[in-house]
Amino acid sequence: MKQYDYELTFKVRDYECDLQGIVNNANYQHYLEHTRHEFLLSRGISFSELHEKGIDAVIARIEIAFKCPLRSKDEFVSKLNIRKEGIKNVFYQDIYRLPDMKLCIRAKAENVCLVQGELKECPELEEKLNVFYAPQLSK
Amino acid sequence: MKQYDYELTFKVRDYECDLQGIVNNANYQHYLEHTRHEFLLSRGISFSELHEKGIDAVIARIEIAFKCPLRSKDEFVSKLNIRKEGIKNVFYQDIYRLPDMKLCIRAKAENVCLVQGELKECPELEEKLNVFYAPQLSK
Amino acid sequence: MKQYDYELTFKVRDYECDLQGIVNNANYQHYLEHTRHEFLLSRGISFSELHEKGIDAVIARIEIAFKCPLRSKDEFVSKLNIRKEGIKNVFYQDIYRLPDMKLCIRAKAENVCLVQGELKECPELEEKLNVFYAPQLSK
Amino acid sequence: MKQYDYELTFKVRDYECDLQGIVNNANYQHYLEHTRHEFLLSRGISFSELHEKGIDAVIARIEIAFKCPLRSKDEFVSKLNIRKEGIKNVFYQDIYRLPDMKLCIRAKAENVCLVQGELKECPELEEKLNVFYAPQLSK
Repeated sequence: MKQYDYELTFKVRDYECDLQGIVNNANYQHYLEHTRHEFLLSRGISFSELHEKGIDAVIARIEIAFKCPLRSKDEFVSKLNIRKEGIKNVFYQDIYRLPDMKLCIRAKAENVCLVQGELKECPELEEKLNVFYAPQLSK
Repeated sequence: MKQYDYELTFKVRDYECDLQGIVNNANYQHYLEHTRHEFLLSRGISFSELHEKGIDAVIARIEIAFKCPLRSKDEFVSKLNIRKEGIKNVFYQDIYRLPDMKLCIRAKAENVCLVQGELKECPELEEKLNVFYAPQLSK
Repeated sequence: MKQYDYELTFKVRDYECDLQGIVNNANYQHYLEHTRHEFLLSRGISFSELHEKGIDAVIARIEIAFKCPLRSKDEFVSKLNIRKEGIKNVFYQDIYRLPDMKLCIRAKAENVCLVQGELKECPELEEKLNVFYAPQLSK
Repeated sequence: MKQYDYELTFKVRDYECDLQGIVNNANYQHYLEHTRHEFLLSRGISFSELHEKGIDAVIARIEIAFKCPLRSKDEFVSKLNIRKEGIKNVFYQDIYRLPDMKLCIRAKAENVCLVQGELKECPELEEKLNVFYAPQLSK
């Protein structure tokens, strides 16, 4: 059973579905983003407070494989692992439908920091995330 | 034929439709907001620049009558009138489907200004809008 | 203390905030809609299944008073009462910020049914909602 | 100068910006999707009509590189090329800010067809797209 650093449970909201009757692709980016921000918050890092200090965590690149669509009334769990890769924090994110745990989304989101608009390491962020970088054996 | 202070043409985007195959209600607020912001811009008023100066134009109250749903591929025109009513700028907004001009949305949006967080008159805004308040005969 | 027929707790997601740093107006319609749909589901009525049977519950008119903005990280509770008024089901909906219970949104949403595209009573819906119409003393 | 099969001009709408004051990542997927659907429409293929016939064009995988953020009031052009790669239609999509043509987004979206829920070739779609597959020399 794969281990994750963080997970969050959601329920599809009907307005997130499009005329095909399935969750519109862009909304998965919303789910993935909200999961990352809640994970950061659980580590004492507030996305909005960082912004007010002139630090913007931004996604430089994302890959999303859409394995199985979510529909009205579906509940699902969004899980993530974080790995430090050079200057980037890379989030490996999977979304599973509940209760059958069918894999719906597999994503990789590469995050970088802009400090006063310049791409650089953000010590404030790294310190609080540090504990997660140790066991890079799996994945 | 009713006169309007401003109008803007749109086309429905498929992601704006929900599982009923019609534009989701909340998206009409998006259309109405974008029309107001483009109108303001046409008068030299930038919503985002106002915000950076500590002036936030916010909607205090909105009423929307949903007359006829828009669907995939529909084009439509969003029209507005602005009236000064006390401290508020009130936008009367109608959305008509093209080309048959069927009325889809009739809305009234009451806008107030927060200057450094406090409700007050915003001279910067009023001066540029001033010309629109004169002929209050119709409506 | 006001009584409600149903309530649901949410947390603001950062993507719901706009460049003013507050939840964008249109997203309150999303919160209100999701609350109504979850309420219906709690009564055994599925919005998406109704649609598949040719029955579309649609909002004919909405009024929203924006009392206090929600921000990043805010939690809130969305409450509703339902009243039968002629052919319409009218939802009276309030959103309160947690934990201080400050009133953020007061809304009234008038719902009608389209059965195979025609405006009419929907017995399937009314039967399941029936119990809620009795005590119309308050409100 | 790179050649494209199709292009569409947009303007950022303020509600698409998040609390960082830049367009929220998920909205680029909306721009990319709308560009693909308008391209299909220009070839006589309607996404919504396909759905009504039981044919769903869905994205199986997307990669997006976020090169430069778009902001309030920015105009931009969204361009695409389409290539047939096995059973997939692959869209290579770039978004450039106007008027300086700075590259903002580089994306690759892999599209497949579900016919009555089963993954298969969709002759109806392929026939109308056919002309685009010939010159695979560039890219």
